[in-house]
Amino acid sequence: MALRIPRGVFASLLVVLLVSLVHATSAREPPRLEMVTSAAPGLTVSRARAAAASCASWRLGVETNNIRGWYSIPAECRGYVSDYMFSDQFRQDCAVAAREAAAYAEGLELAGDGREVWVFDIDDTVLTNLPYYADTGFGAEPYNATYFDEYVANATAPPLPEVLELYEKLLALGIKVVFITGRHDYQREPTVKNLRSAGYHTWEKLVLKPSSLTLGSSVLPYKSGERQKLVDAGYRIVGNMGDQWSDLVGAPEGDRTFKVPDPMYYVG
Amino acid sequence: MALRIPRGVFASLLVVLLVSLVHATSAREPPRLEMVTSAAPGLTVSRARAAAASCASWRLGVETNNIRGWYSIPAECRGYVSDYMFSDQFRQDCAVAAREAAAYAEGLELAGDGREVWVFDIDDTVLTNLPYYADTGFGAEPYNATYFDEYVANATAPPLPEVLELYEKLLALGIKVVFITGRHDYQREPTVKNLRSAGYHTWEKLVLKPSSLTLGSSVLPYKSGERQKLVDAGYRIVGNMGDQWSDLVGAPEGDRTFKVPDPMYYVG
Repeated sequence: MALRIPRGVFASLLVVLLVSLVHATSAREPPRLEMVTSAAPGLTVSRARAAAASCASWRLGVETNNIRGWYSIPAECRGYVSDYMFSDQFRQDCAVAAREAAAYAEGLELAGDGREVWVFDIDDTVLTNLPYYADTGFGAEPYNATYFDEYVANATAPPLPEVLELYEKLLALGIKVVFITGRHDYQREPTVKNLRSAGYHTWEKLVLKPSSLTLGSSVLPYKSGERQKLVDAGYRIVGNMGDQWSDLVGAPEGDRTFKVPDPMYYVG
Repeated sequence: MALRIPRGVFASLLVVLLVSLVHATSAREPPRLEMVTSAAPGLTVSRARAAAASCASWRLGVETNNIRGWYSIPAECRGYVSDYMFSDQFRQDCAVAAREAAAYAEGLELAGDGREVWVFDIDDTVLTNLPYYADTGFGAEPYNATYFDEYVANATAPPLPEVLELYEKLLALGIKVVFITGRHDYQREPTVKNLRSAGYHTWEKLVLKPSSLTLGSSVLPYKSGERQKLVDAGYRIVGNMGDQWSDLVGAPEGDRTFKVPDPMYYVG
């Protein structure tokens, strides 16, 4: 375990850090490949550089949906992923996704009939689970369902600031928001509490996964099926944003999709 | 112009370089963010770092299809893109795409009835146009149709070595290859010549774009339409690889798609 800070304290610190980042104006130093040595301090510099280049290629493969069905990040990329998740690069990557989405939304000719919706995934899209993942190896350790349920029940996940900003812009444009999440329906109460405390104050629908769908079943048909229900109910999905490709593929995808970076885990 | 070497000489040198890379076994030093200063030498180090982080975010946005409809790379990213295109990182990024594709193909239960095909785009997928782009600002200068036609007519584009290796593996597995390219039908002869000289010796079909489809028209319906014709003719598209999202989206996409990195240009 790289982190020795107690979970609750760490989560609180992270909230403070993330909130302060929303207001940060000066650019911090971007990550350097040379920094990526925390996973394996015994590596020589040149081997560490090769590992970093290789982990960067792995991350690009994940982000482009070339690499699928993986269960945990490569062991040698643990330091790389943790460095990335706390880096300015990650924040800028999120900012680009959110900025492109905002520019697209601002350019739409909206009917303003209240049927135009934007679909958001929740975990690691509107809220960040970095507190949970920082505590469990940044995706290098197996998914811990008990601890994650506890984390969800605590309702303390911070917002991803760039996405919160996009959310406010969409509402101001008159686009309604629908959340479609892989969280289960029995987690509705803490999810509502967490969304509100993170700044997401209003939404058209909050769709949670039926308890009958277990961890092993693919979320892709569930998520595309829920989007189809929206279309059948007369909504027009003008945009769709998520951190997993299973949020974004499968008709109806929505008029345009936006991928939020996430090198920590894969949901198929 | 950063390069002063005559075009023909440069292209020949690049062929030698790329061919030698196929056989390279030792890892070269990966690119460092600090190196990315060639575009704007007057920048301070910290501003160059910020620009590099920003260009990396822009590239990720392009690769994930978040950023669409762009005409040229951001001016401040010219040095970043040229460094990337000649870097070990680019080669490793290509290798990951090709390796994942090969692993997927090797895991398929093939019917072996001669109807299983793999669709490849040509430009910057099986062949690299780096000689053309190195000579025209790595995507920072406007597309030069006259010069590009000349480049195609020369039939000297080198293979992307990682994709050539994948091609050989697919053929060995009994998967047939179909090329669907944005090159025009009047360019068939130099295209055949170039494919053969680059090592692509056999294919089931080589589909070129009708001359009636001009540069301004979207290639997406053309490419998905050609894939539909394959399906209608009884082929099963087990895989599909391209450097542009317009190669990969639009039903029928193929059973699985693979994105080759390309931060130099956008084809919608």
